[in-house]
Formats: sequence, C-alpha cells, structure tokens
Amino acid sequence: MAVTAASSTDRIEKALESALHRTQGPGAPPRLLAAMRHAVFPGGARIRPQLCLAVAQACGDSDPTMADAAAAAIELLHCASLVHDDLPCFDDAELRRGKPSVHRAFGEPLAVLAGDGMIVLAFESVAAAGVSKPALLAPILLTVARAVGAPNGIVAGQAWESEPAISLAAYQQAKTGALFAAATVAGAQSAGGDGAAWRTLGERLGEAFQIADDILDAIGKTATAGKPVGRDAVLGRPNAVAELGLRGALDHFHELTAEAIASVPECPGQVPLRAHIAERTRKLLPVEVALHAA
Amino acid sequence: MAVTAASSTDRIEKALESALHRTQGPGAPPRLLAAMRHAVFPGGARIRPQLCLAVAQACGDSDPTMADAAAAAIELLHCASLVHDDLPCFDDAELRRGKPSVHRAFGEPLAVLAGDGMIVLAFESVAAAGVSKPALLAPILLTVARAVGAPNGIVAGQAWESEPAISLAAYQQAKTGALFAAATVAGAQSAGGDGAAWRTLGERLGEAFQIADDILDAIGKTATAGKPVGRDAVLGRPNAVAELGLRGALDHFHELTAEAIASVPECPGQVPLRAHIAERTRKLLPVEVALHAA
Repeated sequence: MAVTAASSTDRIEKALESALHRTQGPGAPPRLLAAMRHAVFPGGARIRPQLCLAVAQACGDSDPTMADAAAAAIELLHCASLVHDDLPCFDDAELRRGKPSVHRAFGEPLAVLAGDGMIVLAFESVAAAGVSKPALLAPILLTVARAVGAPNGIVAGQAWESEPAISLAAYQQAKTGALFAAATVAGAQSAGGDGAAWRTLGERLGEAFQIADDILDAIGKTATAGKPVGRDAVLGRPNAVAELGLRGALDHFHELTAEAIASVPECPGQVPLRAHIAERTRKLLPVEVALHAA
Repeated sequence: MAVTAASSTDRIEKALESALHRTQGPGAPPRLLAAMRHAVFPGGARIRPQLCLAVAQACGDSDPTMADAAAAAIELLHCASLVHDDLPCFDDAELRRGKPSVHRAFGEPLAVLAGDGMIVLAFESVAAAGVSKPALLAPILLTVARAVGAPNGIVAGQAWESEPAISLAAYQQAKTGALFAAATVAGAQSAGGDGAAWRTLGERLGEAFQIADDILDAIGKTATAGKPVGRDAVLGRPNAVAELGLRGALDHFHELTAEAIASVPECPGQVPLRAHIAERTRKLLPVEVALHAA
C-alpha cells in the first residue's frame, strides 16, 4: 500500500472544512467563525495530521472517517495552541504562517474564544465520527485529550513557562512530543491497531521536529519560517542550537529520525511508511541549513 | 425516588475531585494544577451539575458513573468559561466566588491555560467514563460540546460581545441557556433516556437563572453575589431589570420557572423532580429581592 501525501493532504483539508462546517448555523457570531477559519486556513505543513493518516494507512485504514476526524482534531488542537501561545500574555506574536496572528487580526477577546472554540470542536468532531463506531471512540478521545491537557499535554508544556523553575524534559516532551505521539497512537487506534506500540515513533518525531524548529529559529529567515525568528533567544526559551551548537543539533536531529524510522511496528504498510517518514523529515530543514553547518 | 440534594452535592464534589486527580502525575507543572483547583474549589451553587444529577436520578440513574462524569464535565466547562470571561480582555474581574479571580491570583498566562486545561479535562472525564459504556459516549459528548462551542454554545455567546451588532436572543441563549440545556439533556442521556425531551426544562431554567443573575447584578450586594455587582451597567451589557424593570423581571422569572416545572417529561421520578426544581429556583433570589420589588 502506498502512502500518498497528495490524497492525504486532500483528506486533511476536507476533514478540517467538515469540522469547521459544524460551527456554522443560525445564531453563530460571524467574527468568531472568521477568526477560527483564519487560525486553520491556509495551513502550515499539517505535519501532525499527515503523520496520523500515514499511520492509519500503514495499519490498513479500516475506518477512514474516524482517521480523518482524529487527524483533524489533532490539527485543530495544534492551531488552538498556536492562537493562545501567540497572545500578548505569552509570545505577543505579530505573525503566524506569514499573516497576522489571530489577536492582531481579530483582537484579543476573539483570539481567546477562537482557541477555546477550536478545542471544543476537536472533541466534537471525534465524537461525531464515533457515533457509528462507538468502540473506537473512548480510546481515541483519551489519547487526544491526554496529549493536550495536564499532566503531560501541550497546555501543561506551555504552563512550565510560568513556573519559577522549569523542568526542561517535561516542557519539551509536553509542548511538542505529546501531540506527535497522539498523532501516531490515534492513527493506529482509528484503524483498530494497538496504539501503545506506535508511541515511540511519535515521540521521536516530535523531538526531531522540535530540534528542527529550534534550528530554524536560531538561523532561519522570517520569510521561510512564516513567523518571526530569533524569538527563543529574545524570550529566554530553551533552544537546541544554544545548547548543542548547530552541528550537535543537526546530529541529534538525524539520530532521532533514524530511531523514529527504526521504531515503526510491523504492519501491512511498514515499508512505505518508513520511506514516507524519511522523506518528510528531510523536508523539515532547508538545504542551506546543512551548508550553514558544514 | 427522592432527589436528595445532600448526596448529589457529595457526588458532584467527588466527581470533580476525581476529574482533577487526572491532572496529577510526574511532569505536571504545579502552578497550573493549583490554578485549576482554585477555579473549581470551593464551588458556587453547582446549579448545573445538580440539575444534571437530578434529571439522571428522575430517569432512574442507571449509570451513575456516567452521570457523575457528565455533571463534572458541565461544571468544569462552566468554571473554565468564568476563568476566561474574567480575563483582562473581557471583564477584568477582580473577584469570583468571593476570592481573587484566577488571573489575579496566578497571572494571565496561567488563567488562559487553566481554562484550556479544564475544557480538555471535561471531555477527557466523559471519555474515561465511556470506556465501559461506549454506546452512551458519543451522544453525551455531542450534547456537551454543542453547549460550549460554536454556533450556539457559551463560547459563541461570549463572542457576541465582539460583534458590531449583538443578537440579544442568540447571546443569552448561547451564553447561559446552552449549558443548562446540556445539563438536563446529558442527565437524561446518562440514564439511557431520550435527551431531546428534556431540552425545554434546561432552556427555561437557564433563562430564569439569567434573569435572577441580572436582578442580583442590578440590586444585589457584592458580599451576597461573591463577585462585583452593577457590572452590566458599567460594561453596557444587556440586563433584564434595565429592560423590564424589577417587577417585570421578577414576573418573567416566575413565568419561566413555572414553564420549566410544567415541561418535566414523564419519568419514574417526575413528582420529586418537580418539587426539587421548585425549591432550587426559590433559592436563586434572596428574600429581600421580593421586598425590594413590593
């Protein structure tokens, strides 16, 4: 079975459209809906939902409706976290994906509410897909919820920035790793697979992605990243390049992606999934980064 | 079957404790957890989860674990909405339930994140209860999610304050009515009942509660309300007393509670539930309000 990124892209955009369609109806406040659309479209690389669908496909994709809903939920939760992280009380970011952040475009109240609404919509979308497949629902919801809430989800990760002393491992694992792990676990669960076997893949990819993000922040250009760069240094946040140097960060990135690929469990689509992950991770860093480090 | 408020109170506090227990674990940021506890304990009247359990009991309470989870989820979502509504970009409220609001006590970042975490926790708690009763899960989750998100939930209600022109009916129904309706519908669903038949009860009680809140805001004392009063006039928000006068608002309150009680569907506990609702609604307004209106 081939993992086809093109059709996955199509599935993800349709699943997100279908989720956002749920927010329309008589009595809906128009600017809230516009703010939510602004946060979701046009997307970034959609790397988490792509990963979710790639795993579902590798496991046989026996329930594409549920896989699509899980992928959309994970992307909605990711987008919600970006909207809230960009707020003035956190990063006060002007730009996101090359356009104004939600609070810059719609004001702070609607940025708070759009994020809230997207969190709710994520769970609602999975619940709607679960009406016809009730046995899949609770495990997938628990996977997704634990990746976002406390003690170890992205909300907890972000909250470490408000602690007097930060637990760096907990911070990075929760802030980035958790949702990547949910993508692989929920992808497998939506195809009736054993979610737990797929956790390592998501965790290693999440770590690798965090390092790539740190590298782009440290040496990247705003136009390439679609958001301001150099922010980690300005905000005093941990950054792998600051810790390990560029060469060290790149080496660690390659170690993590190799571990991720090696961890892919036995499944009908194991070989194409490994190739897909190798290809996607290569694209995380532009060619000039390797030259920069040489 | 008697509806016993004392045992319901006990069930609700235990269900909320049990939900918050899910946020504990290695790697949890302590201040986030403290902020979430601050938002949930000690509670107010817990009127929504009390209503949810009262309906579940009237319907036979065949799955108390699910009823408790639904009640706790509804209260968590209510508390989350208070935390976010109190933020500086909305009401900038100093006090809530007689103590500092979450952003005053823990800062704005943790208030945003505590609210987010409580939304996630609400869905996680229902999902956890649904592991052993998968057929109940999707309908209850959809009931709860629709009461909170867009187009007609509390997030949408709050978002009407950011529109150039407000739809007053949509605003009040979404901001207060939706979660009351979810309480009665989910209460019935958790006992295997027909949720739709219970919607009118929740909607009428939500309207009545909104009017009682407007009356307390217009003529109440901060010490009684546990939050600053007179805020509707200051913030230019709609208020039933401003629209109808105190006598008119009180009359409308009594009409709505009578309609609510008349709407209770046939069920094993119909008679005690009607008595329970009559008693609870009487307590919404202190005696001096009636004297004030005389």
